[in-house]
Amino acid sequence: MEKDEREIRALIETWMAATKAGDVETVLGLMTDDVVFLVPGRPPMSKSEFAAAAKTQAQGAAPRIDGASEIREIKVLGDWAYLWTRLSVTVTPPGGAPTKRAGHTLSVLKKVNGKWLLARDANMLAPEA
Amino acid sequence: MEKDEREIRALIETWMAATKAGDVETVLGLMTDDVVFLVPGRPPMSKSEFAAAAKTQAQGAAPRIDGASEIREIKVLGDWAYLWTRLSVTVTPPGGAPTKRAGHTLSVLKKVNGKWLLARDANMLAPEA
Repeated sequence: MEKDEREIRALIETWMAATKAGDVETVLGLMTDDVVFLVPGRPPMSKSEFAAAAKTQAQGAAPRIDGASEIREIKVLGDWAYLWTRLSVTVTPPGGAPTKRAGHTLSVLKKVNGKWLLARDANMLAPEA
Repeated sequence: MEKDEREIRALIETWMAATKAGDVETVLGLMTDDVVFLVPGRPPMSKSEFAAAAKTQAQGAAPRIDGASEIREIKVLGDWAYLWTRLSVTVTPPGGAPTKRAGHTLSVLKKVNGKWLLARDANMLAPEA
């Protein structure tokens, strides 16, 4: 496996582990400053909006977040790459029932100062029984 | 505007015009053979699945399709590019009420034999009132 591909796989693992741990700062360090998050039915979300939402969530009685990502494709294009994953996420609020969402993501990554970062993210997760 | 960006804008215009005209063959000529279409709540769709769905639709009493795309970003990376659009599509079945879907797309394009083609497509359109 190429070095870049290994680094991108490590980025995904770190992102997932930090999300499960509620470690917002680590997750914010894995994205470009001009990152754009795209999801169905909502306006695009910037890095500051992502940070505000994640910190609000972390301050309250935080839900337990579990998930798994399966990498379907990584294509490195010099200092850029695209990434296709199948992702499933289960969110369990304190005292509440878990909700599961699953589906695909398509992301654009950029190598900045030798480090791969998330730059554009299309999230197509939908509720699952 | 760069030549590649102009050609990618032309690809989007041709795609939209051919879709409105029910010209499936032209649309199929605008994508790579290994294209993958990703949408929420459904498995990934291949070129042959796209073709089958489009031809079935074109054979019956075809709905009227109208739409508009607004290009938010084009980034050319050599023989690859990514594209972010805001898209709205209205589908009106014969004798039926129109349904409108709107949202964002994130796509990966590839230049094959000098021609830009759609290679990966994330479609985040959601129903709109």
